[in-house]
Parts: sequence; structure tokens; C-alpha cells
Amino acid sequence: MTRASASPAEPRSAAPAFPGPLPAALAATSEPPVMEARRWIEGKSFPAERPLLNLSQAAPVDPPPEGLRRAIAEAALNDPQAHLYGPVLGLPALREDVAARWSRDYSGEIRPEDVAVTAGCNQAFCAMLATLAGPGDAILLPVPWYFNHKMWCDMMGIEARPLPCDADLNPDLAAAEARMDGVTAIVLITPNNPTGAEYPAGLVEAFAALARRHGAALMLDETYRDFDSRDAAPHALFSDPEWRETLVHLYSFSKAYRLTGHRVGLAIAHPARLAQAEKFLDSVQICAGQLGQIAALHGLRHLDDFVTGQRDEILARRAVVRDSFRQALPDWELMGCGAYFAYIRHPFAEDAETLCKALVDEQSLLILPGTMFCPQGDPLGPQSFRVAFANADADGLRDALARLADFSAGRARR
Amino acid sequence: MTRASASPAEPRSAAPAFPGPLPAALAATSEPPVMEARRWIEGKSFPAERPLLNLSQAAPVDPPPEGLRRAIAEAALNDPQAHLYGPVLGLPALREDVAARWSRDYSGEIRPEDVAVTAGCNQAFCAMLATLAGPGDAILLPVPWYFNHKMWCDMMGIEARPLPCDADLNPDLAAAEARMDGVTAIVLITPNNPTGAEYPAGLVEAFAALARRHGAALMLDETYRDFDSRDAAPHALFSDPEWRETLVHLYSFSKAYRLTGHRVGLAIAHPARLAQAEKFLDSVQICAGQLGQIAALHGLRHLDDFVTGQRDEILARRAVVRDSFRQALPDWELMGCGAYFAYIRHPFAEDAETLCKALVDEQSLLILPGTMFCPQGDPLGPQSFRVAFANADADGLRDALARLADFSAGRARR
Repeated sequence: MTRASASPAEPRSAAPAFPGPLPAALAATSEPPVMEARRWIEGKSFPAERPLLNLSQAAPVDPPPEGLRRAIAEAALNDPQAHLYGPVLGLPALREDVAARWSRDYSGEIRPEDVAVTAGCNQAFCAMLATLAGPGDAILLPVPWYFNHKMWCDMMGIEARPLPCDADLNPDLAAAEARMDGVTAIVLITPNNPTGAEYPAGLVEAFAALARRHGAALMLDETYRDFDSRDAAPHALFSDPEWRETLVHLYSFSKAYRLTGHRVGLAIAHPARLAQAEKFLDSVQICAGQLGQIAALHGLRHLDDFVTGQRDEILARRAVVRDSFRQALPDWELMGCGAYFAYIRHPFAEDAETLCKALVDEQSLLILPGTMFCPQGDPLGPQSFRVAFANADADGLRDALARLADFSAGRARR
Repeated sequence: MTRASASPAEPRSAAPAFPGPLPAALAATSEPPVMEARRWIEGKSFPAERPLLNLSQAAPVDPPPEGLRRAIAEAALNDPQAHLYGPVLGLPALREDVAARWSRDYSGEIRPEDVAVTAGCNQAFCAMLATLAGPGDAILLPVPWYFNHKMWCDMMGIEARPLPCDADLNPDLAAAEARMDGVTAIVLITPNNPTGAEYPAGLVEAFAALARRHGAALMLDETYRDFDSRDAAPHALFSDPEWRETLVHLYSFSKAYRLTGHRVGLAIAHPARLAQAEKFLDSVQICAGQLGQIAALHGLRHLDDFVTGQRDEILARRAVVRDSFRQALPDWELMGCGAYFAYIRHPFAEDAETLCKALVDEQSLLILPGTMFCPQGDPLGPQSFRVAFANADADGLRDALARLADFSAGRARR
């Protein structure tokens, strides 16, 4: 295969030389943005009157509710199965409960054999993509995109083809139609990471129809569905009895039940597709962790009210951002704001990454630069940030906006 | 890319048709053997006087010791960090303890930054392989091989080049020397899965030297190291200060501490290699589960005596197999026996997979056929079985041998 030179594209400062040749695909893959951002704050101390405010990662900061923590502890102490390998595609009870709940929520028929449990939603994406695309294939990713999707495509030799979005940050259907050559899957995230956009049901359904017409799949990542501001189902795709021909649905239990550290997510797809994904999951994971699966099952059975409360709280936080943004930052633009994320455009001449590092040093505020979510050369990247607003309460968000305003004062505009 | 027809190579009976084209690499990958074997016993009932004896998977059947279970429960209840994302490469405390322990055990210098924690040893293999080989590269795998290694190579477009073993099931060094063209890594498992062979230290070191001469790496999977019958370190590779140029070490916490359901393993390698593997791990996993890491750390700090006892017990089980095999099965061959596994050759005309299914039905005994561990067409595959003897106690093993003897009686020989 083609070999890169010994060092990766963007070596860390003072990183030791890589021993031997490095496969070109991995060399061309960017480093994990979240770990990069962690390094910006590593070893730094922040003033007591302005402690670090970390809005970089979509991670609930509080622990799960006590009942769930007790359920995990109880299983660890008394359930021998909790320590043993389980089936590759997940605990049967969890697959059954997901099938029943999703069937109800989406007014469709989803059977236990349509459900695979994975070690987080990233892994669900990787495993399902293995059934959809190989080297030389392309998939469509709306821009800004989720960096791990792009990174995995780079590693697998799959083309991550950028799909432009409109002014509301919804993916452009006509642009997609014109970019379908060699595309085996369209990947949509709604509510979106990184933009927060909630895609209209009709648009999602139109994308499914487009995929079907081209013999491609629609991979729909609904990790943030529990915090969608709309009360109805976000799309009607599952009510089509033929949904398995086109749709691959992804979800994460990390956000609703605060289980990020347990790594548990899922895919819903045609059982024959899951049988193929099972090869991938067996080889890379064997099975998702049992305690995480037990926790997810507990959540489905006992935490509906908790999730409703979480959603109300996050929608309230969104309202704070929406209501206060323009006054706090009159020459900035709130491009998108929903679920966990606000996507914002700054007015400065400097690029977003430089500004992010300065924000850490000057304002003890950590957010991620748009360059982490955009193709190289895309003008939006250097001009934008992702803010994981759901990680802060209303006071914290007002504080964050005040810090941005303070940072903004007197800085050179574009 | 090249597309396979709609169905995988060996479709399950009555499996629904795959929706759309399937990437050729995945289609060419075999199904997970352990899940296949699970289906052989699914829905079957076994007579009370001869219950199912499952020696198919290397999985401790008893739960971890109570102290470890309590440590997990305590963290679940009271440590908020246990529910949050951690660093991609693992908990710093665990990386530190591993570095100190491995440095001592192997008389070498292993630093915390040389250690990456992964969600099981399979994942360590996949992540490290991404830094070693891409489509068109080859790696050497001694035959019989570990099926997940072969499966992952197939999925990644990497050639899994078979390396013959000698009569003691040790990999043949001269044969390797003649097969190095295009090889970027040699993968050795010692003690071996599936054969139980404990590779002599000198042989392992000769393979490291061979790899180095060819600019390749030696990936050394020591998942079963805690049950090696030898008291000294199994090789001196880490005592070479240049070990990072050639060696990639893999390990699993699953066996020593009975943590199979928690998915926690590790890789030890050059920090620049780990920085590359971090891209893979971030995209496919984000981080290993926190509770599994906490459990592994507890094990390292508190379970030395427990592991010593486990090792004694497993060596005693091995002695039962070694001492009783020839008398119980005079015309069979015990090809290998160590750590968790015995690798045995049967004298029948029928192929191993047919015999395995018959063993389930006639003797309530589940073991895996050699065909799952050998390249297609290799004569050893249909003639051999892997027996995970460590899963049964001495009485269970005598029972298993008696069942095999009973099965053997009157069956047509080759």
C-alpha cells in the first residue's frame, strides 16, 4: 500500500518519531479533537473567580440518578451474568425493550431481531458502515459534520463527501441529488451534532426517498432525540413496513441516562444487515459491557420521568442561549441551537482554533473550533465554534455569554 | 468497489436476504464462530443426568471475587467519574500501575505513556493493527490461528498469511523467514489460543529479531500470560531498551480477574504508535468502560493471591487433561495443552464441524471445530478441536473425557 512518511500529517509538538512506516489512511486521519482540546487545558490553572467552564464535549456532568446507580451496583454484586461475555448483538431483554419502545415512539414495527446493542453510538456507526461501504465507496455527510464520522471514513478508505447545508443548517436535498455518484449511504444526525439543527420530518423522509432511489441507505443518527424540542415523532420512516430496505437508525444511551462512561448505544436495521455487522462487532468488541446494558435496560424501564425532566431543563437552557445571544454578542451569529449544541459564528479576523486557545487563557472557557467540524478549506470552519451548551445550567450559560462578550470587546473584526 | 452478490458466503439457513449490495470484504469474512456455536445449543434441552458441558469459549464461569465486585459497586454508587467519558487511552492511574507491574514482571522499562487501555484485547489488536497494516499489506499468523484475527484482516483488506507450526505447535521460524514479502507484522499469541502452546522465550526473541530485520513489528498477544506454567518471564524483549521499535504487546484483564463482561484489555507500544491508535479508539469506542478499568485497577492492587490461586487451579486442570488423555482416548492425539486450551486431533472420517454438532446432540458437550481456526483447505482443520479445558474443574474434565470416549466408541475411523 501507499506509505506516508514517518510522521503523521499534524504531529504533536515534541512527539517522538513513529517507529517504522505508518499506513497512509491512518496518517491522513486527523487526531481526536476532544483529546486535542483536553491538551489545551492540561496542566493549566484557572483563577478562582473564573473557574474553567468546559463546553467542549457533549457529556452530562452529573452522575446518573441514584436508582440507576443502585441497579448497576446490585448487578455487580449479585448477578454473575453481569461479569460474563454476552451475545455479540446484545442482551435479549434490552433488544426486546428497545423494540417495544421504539415501535411505540415511531408508530412502526420494530422487532427485537432488528436491534443490535453496541459499545456506544460511535461503534454503532462504524459497525453499520462496514455493511454499507468499503474502499472506493462514498458516503454523504452534511457540513459541518461530526468529526468521528469523518475520521472513520478516512481510516477505512471511504470518501466522506461533503454535503452543503442551507441557512438553517438543514442539509440541501438538491445538492445531495447532484452528489450521489458512488454514494452508498447518506448519513444524517438529527438533532444535529455539531449544529443543534432539528431536521424537519419531511426533509428526513425526502432524504430516505432519495437514498432508496439510488439503491443507497439512509443512516440516521438520533443520539439526541430525547432532547428534540418537537413533541411528535421526528419522522415517519418506521411506519413504512419496508423501512429495513433503506433505513439504519443509530442511538446512544449516553445522554438520556448519563451513561457516557459505560459505552452503550444501538443500531436498528435489517436483521441480515445486523448479521453482517455482527462480524465487525465480534472482532472489535465481542460484546458491549454488561453493566452498561443493564443500566440502559433499567433506564428504559424506570427513568421516563427523569428523561422528561432532563429534556425540560435542556430546553430551558436552549431558551437562555436563544434569548440572550443577540444582546450579549450583537455582531456574532447564532447559526443553530438545539438539543445539546449551539453553533455560532464569530466576527473576528483570527481563525477559530487560535481563538479557542485564547478563550481558554483569557476567559477559562473551553469550546471547540469549527475547523474540527468542517472540511479543510471550507470557509465556515475558521469562522465558527460548537458550544455544548447543555453542559451548563442557566447561570453558567449567562456566564459563558458574558465571557464571550468580554473576550469580544476590542478584538479586531473581519 | 467490488461487490458481492446479495448473500454472504455462508448464509444462515432461512436468513432474510441482505438489503442491497454488501461490501466484498465483509461478505468474504466468516461469521463469528462463538455465535455460530451458540446456535448449535440454542433451544435444545439436555438430559438431567448429562447436562450441557460448554468448553467452547475461554470465559471464566464464576463471578469475580467479592472484593472486586464490591469495588465496582462502590464506584458505581459513589464515584461520579465512573459514569463519565475518560481519556481515550485509559485511566491515568491504571496506565501507571500497568507500567510499574509490567516493568517488574518483564525486567524492562515500560512507562505509563507506553500503555493504552482498550475495551478488551480484540480491540487492542484491531487498534494496533491499524497502525501496522493497510489494504495490500500482509501479516503472518501461525496456524491454527485465532479466528477474530483472521476475520479482522479479511474485513480490513489485509492479507492474513498462514505460518505453519512444527509438531509442538510452535511457529516455524524458517518458514516465516521465507514468507516475509510484504509482511508488516508478525502476530504471535503465547500461551497460544487455540493450541495452548507456550512458545519458548528464545523462539519469541528470534521472531522479534526477524521482524526487526524486515522493518516489521512483532505483535505479541499475552492474554493468557497469567496461566503460563513457567515461573520466569516468558521472554526478555522488554529488557531491550529499543523494544518500542519492534514490539507491540497485547493483554486482557478478562481472564485473570474474570472480567469478560466488562471488556478491558491493553496494548503496550511506542507512544507515537499509541497516538496513532488513539484515532482508531476514539472513533470506534471513545474510551473503555470506566467500571471495567476501575475493576482492573482493583485487581492489580489487590488480587495477586487470587490470581496465583487461579493459576494453580488451572495448571491442575491441565494436569488432569495431560494425565488422563491417552488412557481415555488412545487413538486421539493431544497436540497441545496449556493455559486455557487443549488442541486435539480426532481419528474419525467425519469432519470436525459435523462431529461437534453430533457431540452436542449425543454427549451434551460443546467444543469448537478446528475448521474455525484453520485456513480453508488446511487438512488440520477438519481433523481437530479446540477444548477450553480451563472452564471445567477436574471432575468436569474427567467427565468431558469420558463423554469423548463414549462418543468415540464404535465410530468409523479414518
